[in-house]
Amino acid sequence: MSIVLGANQYGKAETRVVRIYRDGPEHEIRDLNVSTSLRGEFAAAHLRGDQSGVLPTDTQKNTAYAYARAHGVAEIEAYALTLARHFVADIAPVRAARVDVDEYRWQRIAVDGAPHPHAFVRAGQEIRMASAIVEERAGEPAVWVLSGLRDLVVLKSTGSEFHGFLADRYTTLAETTDRVLATSVTARWRYDRPAADWGAIYPSVRQILLARFAAVHSLALQQTLWEMGRAVLEAHPQIAEIRLSAPNKHHFLVDLAPFGLENPGEVFHADDRPYGLIQCAVQRDDAPPAGAAWEPAASFA
Amino acid sequence: MSIVLGANQYGKAETRVVRIYRDGPEHEIRDLNVSTSLRGEFAAAHLRGDQSGVLPTDTQKNTAYAYARAHGVAEIEAYALTLARHFVADIAPVRAARVDVDEYRWQRIAVDGAPHPHAFVRAGQEIRMASAIVEERAGEPAVWVLSGLRDLVVLKSTGSEFHGFLADRYTTLAETTDRVLATSVTARWRYDRPAADWGAIYPSVRQILLARFAAVHSLALQQTLWEMGRAVLEAHPQIAEIRLSAPNKHHFLVDLAPFGLENPGEVFHADDRPYGLIQCAVQRDDAPPAGAAWEPAASFA
Amino acid sequence: MSIVLGANQYGKAETRVVRIYRDGPEHEIRDLNVSTSLRGEFAAAHLRGDQSGVLPTDTQKNTAYAYARAHGVAEIEAYALTLARHFVADIAPVRAARVDVDEYRWQRIAVDGAPHPHAFVRAGQEIRMASAIVEERAGEPAVWVLSGLRDLVVLKSTGSEFHGFLADRYTTLAETTDRVLATSVTARWRYDRPAADWGAIYPSVRQILLARFAAVHSLALQQTLWEMGRAVLEAHPQIAEIRLSAPNKHHFLVDLAPFGLENPGEVFHADDRPYGLIQCAVQRDDAPPAGAAWEPAASFA
Amino acid sequence: MSIVLGANQYGKAETRVVRIYRDGPEHEIRDLNVSTSLRGEFAAAHLRGDQSGVLPTDTQKNTAYAYARAHGVAEIEAYALTLARHFVADIAPVRAARVDVDEYRWQRIAVDGAPHPHAFVRAGQEIRMASAIVEERAGEPAVWVLSGLRDLVVLKSTGSEFHGFLADRYTTLAETTDRVLATSVTARWRYDRPAADWGAIYPSVRQILLARFAAVHSLALQQTLWEMGRAVLEAHPQIAEIRLSAPNKHHFLVDLAPFGLENPGEVFHADDRPYGLIQCAVQRDDAPPAGAAWEPAASFA
Repeated sequence: MSIVLGANQYGKAETRVVRIYRDGPEHEIRDLNVSTSLRGEFAAAHLRGDQSGVLPTDTQKNTAYAYARAHGVAEIEAYALTLARHFVADIAPVRAARVDVDEYRWQRIAVDGAPHPHAFVRAGQEIRMASAIVEERAGEPAVWVLSGLRDLVVLKSTGSEFHGFLADRYTTLAETTDRVLATSVTARWRYDRPAADWGAIYPSVRQILLARFAAVHSLALQQTLWEMGRAVLEAHPQIAEIRLSAPNKHHFLVDLAPFGLENPGEVFHADDRPYGLIQCAVQRDDAPPAGAAWEPAASFA
Repeated sequence: MSIVLGANQYGKAETRVVRIYRDGPEHEIRDLNVSTSLRGEFAAAHLRGDQSGVLPTDTQKNTAYAYARAHGVAEIEAYALTLARHFVADIAPVRAARVDVDEYRWQRIAVDGAPHPHAFVRAGQEIRMASAIVEERAGEPAVWVLSGLRDLVVLKSTGSEFHGFLADRYTTLAETTDRVLATSVTARWRYDRPAADWGAIYPSVRQILLARFAAVHSLALQQTLWEMGRAVLEAHPQIAEIRLSAPNKHHFLVDLAPFGLENPGEVFHADDRPYGLIQCAVQRDDAPPAGAAWEPAASFA
Repeated sequence: MSIVLGANQYGKAETRVVRIYRDGPEHEIRDLNVSTSLRGEFAAAHLRGDQSGVLPTDTQKNTAYAYARAHGVAEIEAYALTLARHFVADIAPVRAARVDVDEYRWQRIAVDGAPHPHAFVRAGQEIRMASAIVEERAGEPAVWVLSGLRDLVVLKSTGSEFHGFLADRYTTLAETTDRVLATSVTARWRYDRPAADWGAIYPSVRQILLARFAAVHSLALQQTLWEMGRAVLEAHPQIAEIRLSAPNKHHFLVDLAPFGLENPGEVFHADDRPYGLIQCAVQRDDAPPAGAAWEPAASFA
Repeated sequence: MSIVLGANQYGKAETRVVRIYRDGPEHEIRDLNVSTSLRGEFAAAHLRGDQSGVLPTDTQKNTAYAYARAHGVAEIEAYALTLARHFVADIAPVRAARVDVDEYRWQRIAVDGAPHPHAFVRAGQEIRMASAIVEERAGEPAVWVLSGLRDLVVLKSTGSEFHGFLADRYTTLAETTDRVLATSVTARWRYDRPAADWGAIYPSVRQILLARFAAVHSLALQQTLWEMGRAVLEAHPQIAEIRLSAPNKHHFLVDLAPFGLENPGEVFHADDRPYGLIQCAVQRDDAPPAGAAWEPAASFA
């Protein structure tokens, strides 16, 4: 028996890259949070403190900035993919690279009804996400691209039931045919190949998720998530799989009877914790293998 | 010399009241975070543990819920004011009450182009705020009402300069005639009397703040704030004073020269800390006295 | 009637200064978060964008670093006071300066039972605070110094009652003679003059607050806070006033009867929101005037 | 081709269980944040909204409370394991259960030098963690137990170098033989069987991690982590594997030369973002398979 180094990776997390396009009078902005992570021949750094194969995380940060200038950030998926390909292709000890990008979205401020050319206000709450994973292979590298969003906070004030559930000796929950359903959607979807019209797909998926959340009469958050995911796959053949994670943000009807008041679904307490947490994948049965696509950095923590 | 009890107050903070209006097919939602704070004859509770004059904070929470049902939440200013008046008028030991309300705003989800009657998505980032302060007086109580917003995150990619400043031996900052100006606006405004068309004034003030931020060619964040505040007072005679607080969220141009790249205002590092913090009040010279309006609970911490 | 500039201030917030003392084999560390705020003749910056009297916030940051080197950080109160005096004395347009410092505290890591000379682990949760406020006056400037702490999280599993309180039509709370009492103490104390043995007073006050929280049989959090504050003033004649702010972090006994289990004060749900918020000042009746000491930057927001 | 349901799970997250042991005059406290997650035959809930196999998350919460009373919380690993075994053994559709528990640790307040029997102050910053994963198998279920900690914030003011690294065209970092090394350690370790003296192992591992961080002369954070992990495995034969995740919290030497000051490693700027992120596993070469132990809920998000 001996003690050995297992899986390992390193990188630069949360580089806050802001890219302004100012070629004409109308500026554009890409506001990013970029994390890079490398795997490869890094045992010597761990075992002996030998850095000769280690590209500094500071260099990874510099590269994120330089690529934002030299290659641009047309869409975050393309930017992430270009960065990940570079690390695998150009840095000898690197066997695999993962680049995760969050994008904070801005909209133009309206002045006298017209969109301003260079003044912006943060748009909405949700954060757009992209990830590119590149692994060295004989011949061409293997590549996965993910898009996603998080913090898409939605609520239905009716059209949600929850009953007929399994009960055991610890079950006290009352059945209901009318409840508030609220959640904060995290969704990530995987493409079947590393090229797509990312810029058009993102708003389409976002709108499908919202519209299905609204339109599905919910018998459970599980069912709502399935219907949301299925609609995305039906609309976008390039998407091989979508994963959804949704806290059930409970709204409890307040008992106003002690104060002589009825409460017919009008006054609720929005609770913080605990919350239900519902998670599922919806996929094509002929989807290409996911490989390392869903293996997050978080598996180390 | 002796040791005495000084200023004191108590209340229930952050009651999460959600009020659904469901009288017709189109539901409305008010999503609130309510904090109440009472001052008055509470020395016995401190000095002797005698609670006979202390209305429990649990009761204050119940009252917030019951009033949301019985009196409704047409606008948060009115709701806050009704609650604050109640505590002063109806609870004998209470000499003054302050009610602070945050509102999280929702918009209808669009399904097939039409707004859905009971499905919502969180709207924007900024939080609407209202405060009502009521103090017992001989005759009528004194009343102040504040409205406000926070987390209104804005950015200009040009149209901002900073030069000609005072320099001392610790000054190293370079002058600039073109920088990114970004901030997260907190604004609170005080009315000259406790009644106004709150529901119409809020979006108007929000739009004026945005439009002035966009349109003013900025020589300093101080100047931009003054112009934003002045425009609000010019448009709304009922507003006696507005206070603005704005972190200067620094965006530093990245030096790409080591990589053989120019950087003509295109790639920036968005830094977290430290940040400038600029704060000012803009007011009418005949504004009624502010009294306790700006005295936050925070003065105890 | 005209629109005028009211109170205003500006500064650099949250400069993260880490000062290492490495004169001998045993290093010392001061880990600080420094915020400076200036008031004075800054109307031209607001009204006309004229920066000629404005010392950049970047310079204030530089000054915080340079003073940490040149003057050291023996105690944060002294460091804050030296910085604040400098701004008022040396920068012509400055009429008043406020410097707030948070200190994150570290303890030495023990290796084989001995404290290590240069390796540290963060100590405890609470944050030590200091503030110095200096105002220009004819002759000598006026000076206030505050010390404090926050995030001192404490809990008593018994020895706390709550009954005999005022009830109205919205009161449903049951009386109790045995409850969990938990809070996160924020305390700030003001000295009667700008010089004291800050380094000795801080741990003494901290210990008095803890010991009184533990030893006082509580009839209300109000009473506990009063007793904590009074004991501090009794022990430290240099302290003119102490202000305490304490959320009542509710622990609700869980009803286990549906599962055939008694719950004699053993299993609780720790709730997040809402919480009670109890705040009071304890002071000497001959305390010198507080002036601007308690006027936080927060009054602008 | 058709669209199918993929991996899915659901549960109750962040139930805040506080368990007081009050059998004698000296109370004990266990302050927990409990998350449960179930996998199994839940397709009908997704595909048809049929809840007949779904144990409500509310019931899972109730079970967490009831088990804290009936079975106690001697150590969080045992508590998590008992809960996870229950869900798999007693709830028919459940094929696998994961229970994650955070523990916030308290120490007794000292009064007159003696530990108080029922008054506590939160101890340290780090959070103790445990996870139990149980999977149904023919015969006995498969079981994994993890222990861990996070937010263990450490700093060395010297004894850390970084040089000899790989450089490419984007490398600008200077080599150094003396830098500040600071991080916030997250560590999780997996046992080779589901029974151990958890209560004794936790403080031992914590101390080993601290002592190795202090004593290892660091040539890279990678090397420090490897040495920390290796020492844990050498001391504890029951531990099959440890995974470490550590942000490199950069401290930048401030250039004080413009102010006529040297800065020989004394004044630093502690930066927030970006940060390096170093992660590795250290394991025995004959460790039993990890199975689902490291597969976090986060893989859905």
